[in-house]
Amino acid sequence: MYSDHATANIKQVEQHMLDLVLQGTGEAGQAAAYHLSAGGSRVRALLALDAARALALRDDHAVAIAAACELLHNASLVHDDLQDRDVERRGLDAVWRRYGDAAAICVGDLLLSTAYAALAGTGPSTAPLIARMHQRVAAVIRGQCDDIALQGSTLASLETYEAVASAKSGPLLILPLELALALAGRDDAIGTAVDAGSFFAIGYQIVDDLQDLERDALNEELNIVAVLAAAGEAQPHACARALAVRRFRQAQAAAEALPSGCGRLLAAQAMQRCERLLLALETP
Amino acid sequence: MYSDHATANIKQVEQHMLDLVLQGTGEAGQAAAYHLSAGGSRVRALLALDAARALALRDDHAVAIAAACELLHNASLVHDDLQDRDVERRGLDAVWRRYGDAAAICVGDLLLSTAYAALAGTGPSTAPLIARMHQRVAAVIRGQCDDIALQGSTLASLETYEAVASAKSGPLLILPLELALALAGRDDAIGTAVDAGSFFAIGYQIVDDLQDLERDALNEELNIVAVLAAAGEAQPHACARALAVRRFRQAQAAAEALPSGCGRLLAAQAMQRCERLLLALETP
Repeated sequence: MYSDHATANIKQVEQHMLDLVLQGTGEAGQAAAYHLSAGGSRVRALLALDAARALALRDDHAVAIAAACELLHNASLVHDDLQDRDVERRGLDAVWRRYGDAAAICVGDLLLSTAYAALAGTGPSTAPLIARMHQRVAAVIRGQCDDIALQGSTLASLETYEAVASAKSGPLLILPLELALALAGRDDAIGTAVDAGSFFAIGYQIVDDLQDLERDALNEELNIVAVLAAAGEAQPHACARALAVRRFRQAQAAAEALPSGCGRLLAAQAMQRCERLLLALETP
Repeated sequence: MYSDHATANIKQVEQHMLDLVLQGTGEAGQAAAYHLSAGGSRVRALLALDAARALALRDDHAVAIAAACELLHNASLVHDDLQDRDVERRGLDAVWRRYGDAAAICVGDLLLSTAYAALAGTGPSTAPLIARMHQRVAAVIRGQCDDIALQGSTLASLETYEAVASAKSGPLLILPLELALALAGRDDAIGTAVDAGSFFAIGYQIVDDLQDLERDALNEELNIVAVLAAAGEAQPHACARALAVRRFRQAQAAAEALPSGCGRLLAAQAMQRCERLLLALETP
């Protein structure tokens, strides 16, 4: 599903991230490299690389924005794991568990700062990109705070649920497309990228909730099924799945409307998830 | 001791920092504003403003680099207070104590990210400044990690002590001068700014240690007096004071050697601290 070009470049992005975090930063750098070694889908880097190629950006700029997005995502994972006391991340001990709380704070800070350093690789165009990236980071932080504030409450309106879900992963799905579009001088299309990323994030959260139904109930965490049941839905599971399908379709439509096919990877991801959900709807 | 111009501009910097952190960031923004409301010496902002004026930089660039340095410093304070479980900051509850641990992580992240957003106010010159700022942030993080690693050990070599002291506050004292010099095209003088900030940071840490002698002994924290006593100094207190005097004098000399008098504020600060120490040396 990923273009060969993006897959080849992803290795460059991995190396670039590693080089940056290991630049004379002692133990925090080592711990950041440890965290990055756990891998992951690298979907944000791939979205950036694919969009950059579609928009005919320079290769070094493509790698710079891809690394910036992926570093930000990993900064948020390190701090989230500490905040939520999640003990494991992709089969490895979470950073806080292996290196301690204080070190985990340092590692997240280092990854966040390194993301900005990576973005500086875009040269004279950097300033407006920095401003855009900060806006998305601020939105992620707002989402994380709202999420924390909602902990222990199993109920929220569907509107609040969708706003929190959108803020949680939307900004860092929007960002790879946004940075590529801004570099290509296509600021006019960024609103569409925002729609694509936000709808995708909501669909993603609903699927996550459907998988974590029992755990969320046990931990008294907000879950779409409880939200819909409280709103009077007789079949909250099916209704949740249908809502996710709708959001993924909206994400796909928005991503397909982006210029030069730069949203095709997000569109393909949305379509694939949609199909999986429809299959589940047909299976009794 | 501060120029009228710098004092007038500092109000602009305060307002700029507040505007930036309150830009649609919900509770984390409010908590960041709460932290900033505690005030502080704003010495990093003043160093930047004064250097910018001496180097005839644009006023908006001066405010941008001053806000960036001061935001970084405050990001480090919020995370340090959490890491060290310090309950109070300038008469107010520390952020973690008032808003909780998870929120304090978010607030520090927000301040760190906002520092980069502030720096983007320097327009097309932003990219190399971002790279420089990240290097200093990475150095601060390394210093903080080394400091954490040394907790519980009351002994270290004088060399290690000075390296940790220098890494702890040096980078963010260097940065205001460095950014101003880089904007003025005086990269050739940055090495001298590094000397000035590093020597000052060591002097500063020694004075801090002399004041916290009993508390450090109680908490089993590294202190210059213990380091010198272990190194065989018969009069470790006097020796520590003399070392601080030497470092402040070196800081002053380096700061005075900076072009266009752009280091005069740091030089004045170093001289003032030197004089206070010499007075203490004369008093039995």
